[in-house]
Amino acid sequence: MTIDLNSDLGEGMGSWSMGDDEALLSIVTSANVACGFHAGDPPIMREVTARAAALDVAIGAHVAYRDHTGFGRRFIDMEPGVLTDEVIYQIGALDGMARRHGHRVTYVKPHGGLYNAIVTHEEQARAVVRAVHEFDAHLVLMGLPGSVVLRLAEEAGVPTAHEAFADRAYTPEGHLVPRSREGSVLHDPEEIARRCVAMATGEPITDVNGDPLTLHPHSICVHGDTPGAVEIARRVRTALEGAGVTLAPFAPAG
Amino acid sequence: MTIDLNSDLGEGMGSWSMGDDEALLSIVTSANVACGFHAGDPPIMREVTARAAALDVAIGAHVAYRDHTGFGRRFIDMEPGVLTDEVIYQIGALDGMARRHGHRVTYVKPHGGLYNAIVTHEEQARAVVRAVHEFDAHLVLMGLPGSVVLRLAEEAGVPTAHEAFADRAYTPEGHLVPRSREGSVLHDPEEIARRCVAMATGEPITDVNGDPLTLHPHSICVHGDTPGAVEIARRVRTALEGAGVTLAPFAPAG
Amino acid sequence: MTIDLNSDLGEGMGSWSMGDDEALLSIVTSANVACGFHAGDPPIMREVTARAAALDVAIGAHVAYRDHTGFGRRFIDMEPGVLTDEVIYQIGALDGMARRHGHRVTYVKPHGGLYNAIVTHEEQARAVVRAVHEFDAHLVLMGLPGSVVLRLAEEAGVPTAHEAFADRAYTPEGHLVPRSREGSVLHDPEEIARRCVAMATGEPITDVNGDPLTLHPHSICVHGDTPGAVEIARRVRTALEGAGVTLAPFAPAG
Amino acid sequence: MTIDLNSDLGEGMGSWSMGDDEALLSIVTSANVACGFHAGDPPIMREVTARAAALDVAIGAHVAYRDHTGFGRRFIDMEPGVLTDEVIYQIGALDGMARRHGHRVTYVKPHGGLYNAIVTHEEQARAVVRAVHEFDAHLVLMGLPGSVVLRLAEEAGVPTAHEAFADRAYTPEGHLVPRSREGSVLHDPEEIARRCVAMATGEPITDVNGDPLTLHPHSICVHGDTPGAVEIARRVRTALEGAGVTLAPFAPAG
Repeated sequence: MTIDLNSDLGEGMGSWSMGDDEALLSIVTSANVACGFHAGDPPIMREVTARAAALDVAIGAHVAYRDHTGFGRRFIDMEPGVLTDEVIYQIGALDGMARRHGHRVTYVKPHGGLYNAIVTHEEQARAVVRAVHEFDAHLVLMGLPGSVVLRLAEEAGVPTAHEAFADRAYTPEGHLVPRSREGSVLHDPEEIARRCVAMATGEPITDVNGDPLTLHPHSICVHGDTPGAVEIARRVRTALEGAGVTLAPFAPAG
Repeated sequence: MTIDLNSDLGEGMGSWSMGDDEALLSIVTSANVACGFHAGDPPIMREVTARAAALDVAIGAHVAYRDHTGFGRRFIDMEPGVLTDEVIYQIGALDGMARRHGHRVTYVKPHGGLYNAIVTHEEQARAVVRAVHEFDAHLVLMGLPGSVVLRLAEEAGVPTAHEAFADRAYTPEGHLVPRSREGSVLHDPEEIARRCVAMATGEPITDVNGDPLTLHPHSICVHGDTPGAVEIARRVRTALEGAGVTLAPFAPAG
Repeated sequence: MTIDLNSDLGEGMGSWSMGDDEALLSIVTSANVACGFHAGDPPIMREVTARAAALDVAIGAHVAYRDHTGFGRRFIDMEPGVLTDEVIYQIGALDGMARRHGHRVTYVKPHGGLYNAIVTHEEQARAVVRAVHEFDAHLVLMGLPGSVVLRLAEEAGVPTAHEAFADRAYTPEGHLVPRSREGSVLHDPEEIARRCVAMATGEPITDVNGDPLTLHPHSICVHGDTPGAVEIARRVRTALEGAGVTLAPFAPAG
Repeated sequence: MTIDLNSDLGEGMGSWSMGDDEALLSIVTSANVACGFHAGDPPIMREVTARAAALDVAIGAHVAYRDHTGFGRRFIDMEPGVLTDEVIYQIGALDGMARRHGHRVTYVKPHGGLYNAIVTHEEQARAVVRAVHEFDAHLVLMGLPGSVVLRLAEEAGVPTAHEAFADRAYTPEGHLVPRSREGSVLHDPEEIARRCVAMATGEPITDVNGDPLTLHPHSICVHGDTPGAVEIARRVRTALEGAGVTLAPFAPAG
């Protein structure tokens, strides 16, 4: 039983900070590092990749729409060709930073508005898959199970990591309950930790209706943007270790 | 007798274009490609690197201050650590793009305000050298002969390319006559071509006072931002070839 | 018989230029001035507003999504509240510039992706109307006849200017034929000039099917981004004057 | 005895926050509002100006170099003409926002790197004065006593406000002790409050050598970027009120 824990990191910019990167890096096994398009800047990217390298945390390019004031959360109706190029640019920039520390980018996780768009937006999904494939066909693409982007990645031979969310409610179909609905985000650390252990050990969690739902994630996403969030992430890690689950970056078979 | 011809390319952005990249790429042997900080964007970077790869033109990262409205021409009093990280970011982004076409970034040429600053600004010069060295110690750093940055690069074991300017007047000391002075920029294509042949063959040119001055550049910079400039660049190439000079990207000894 | 001629101006940025602002300003009666979000920068805004003031050309805020690399052409799924504030910011910035020359912003014309979105997107349309109304309820909102944004403006008591396009084909319903379809853009200067005269004098033009279609625009948009476009604009003006049409900025009744 | 208390506000951007604007607005009499060039965005500008209007706090344009990643703290060697236009743009944008709430921008305080530059940089100082004068010659320019910018403003007939810093050590000449030197920033709330009362009542403070130094500020700058800073600001206000000093926005004589 092995699971990957991932979190969004390096989301400050210049004089602005966000989240507790240092705490998170001692908890997770994979760091989704902002690449400067929605957040992050070169000094922050250096700091996070250096520390990740030292702690053997995997580095993923948290690629995003070019949108600082919207924090990359808003859909932008980009031309697919431009999107492909912008994703490659971001991966390359982060990979250059990672190499300084003898480390490499090993996966790509789209952020925010882009993440959500390519669950269903075929053209943008294809553009992202193409970017990952062209940069390095061995990179893993992390995304939402059942999404168009993961299907297209698999068709293209790009390895995929299926992600679950530690603190989100799920529909019976295994989709996320939209944030706008009540009960979409869980807050109780113990419940969250229990659900993560269930996910990692192949046991069912309960969906939003209270029925059992079995997810088979390769990676679980935890947050770190509030002190409470860091505490939850730590609790999740402790619970997983207590249940005998091995924590390690996702590695595709073969 | 071998000389490199370099030019600034890929300096459009989005819907804005600048210069005739296509014409220049059929003339020069080294393309200084804007990396998105003063100009250039991922689709333009892709186009230029793809064509450069097809034509065996070397790709250099034309790294710059982060300054679109000033086109990277204005000095910015950056902290050296931030500058190092921003240079690495830019090289990495371009290198990622180049790799798609089986090509690589082989040299770095700072742009505009940064280029001028590190002729004398020791801290920023050191920051640039450090960036090149950390990214890949085999990259060549191209700059102005006699500059602080080239001296520091040589001390650090980073290979350097000494650059001369096809259309600029020189002082007796071999420095550029500042653009603000009359006569600083030459306009006669024949004269420019003759000077380039002299530079490439070890013969003296005349300095701003009319006295002989021998430069030993590894690379000559030509411009392409006006139709006239492209014509001059073409004339330079033809004259060099006519004089039996081999045109090839600069390759450091050993 | 009076008509307004408007054109998009000031769409360069920094070292990048676009279009022939000087030529256009001697042709049109209303200048849609880019406000720095998709194009334009303060020195360009100053230049255009100064010249417009000298020539008695009306100044409109050509407000846009914040998107330089996409030139404001891409839909961005912004929160309406943020959009309202960004539109006010842009109008205020341009108005400050115009006041230096004893001039004022008298109308607002959304640009590109935003222009297209608010033809149908109710929330964003309402956000734009609210911005115009809050900044100054006497400002005119220029847009596409039949659009949601003009309907909402009229409901809110904001004066509206109905715009037609000199060089675009129309459907029988009076909508623009999408640019992606063949024949959507007209190129023959004589035909374009004839259509503009028809529009200004209440005569029908022919729609994309060849049937008569009568538009009643308050303003006709001409382009200036190519030498050919400037020639067409000039031809349109000459034809209108020849037909006895008075050219003047749109002024709402009352 | 009247004094103005000013503070830098609205320095978040998008999802990033900075400082406690709400707390500060209940303490100060003048709000230096970031205008989107170093920090601030339209929704934040709206929020701060709305609240300032409600509390009768004066609104100043905290104009800055265009530099988000450097937070406007780095000197940029801009052309004076461009600087003038960028300052006007920022004032106009903020004034547009303020007018929504029946409020107006009444003063301008340059930020960070620009503030420091125009203490001595004559060309940039002149550019800022020109911007303020052209936008509205009744606006007050706030700056450092003894600076070139205040001298030029006075020569141009622009009213000036002399500023002192609550928590900074002064040289015998009345200059700020550079931040790089030990002891340049004071931390003891009681000492800071005592100094502010002295400044406001015409009594001497002690300079960095322990000798008496009398400053005659029109306005005292307090900070709010940490919980401790807010506490100090509140302590300063309480002490001033206790000493019978009237707190009010600076109003130029006549």
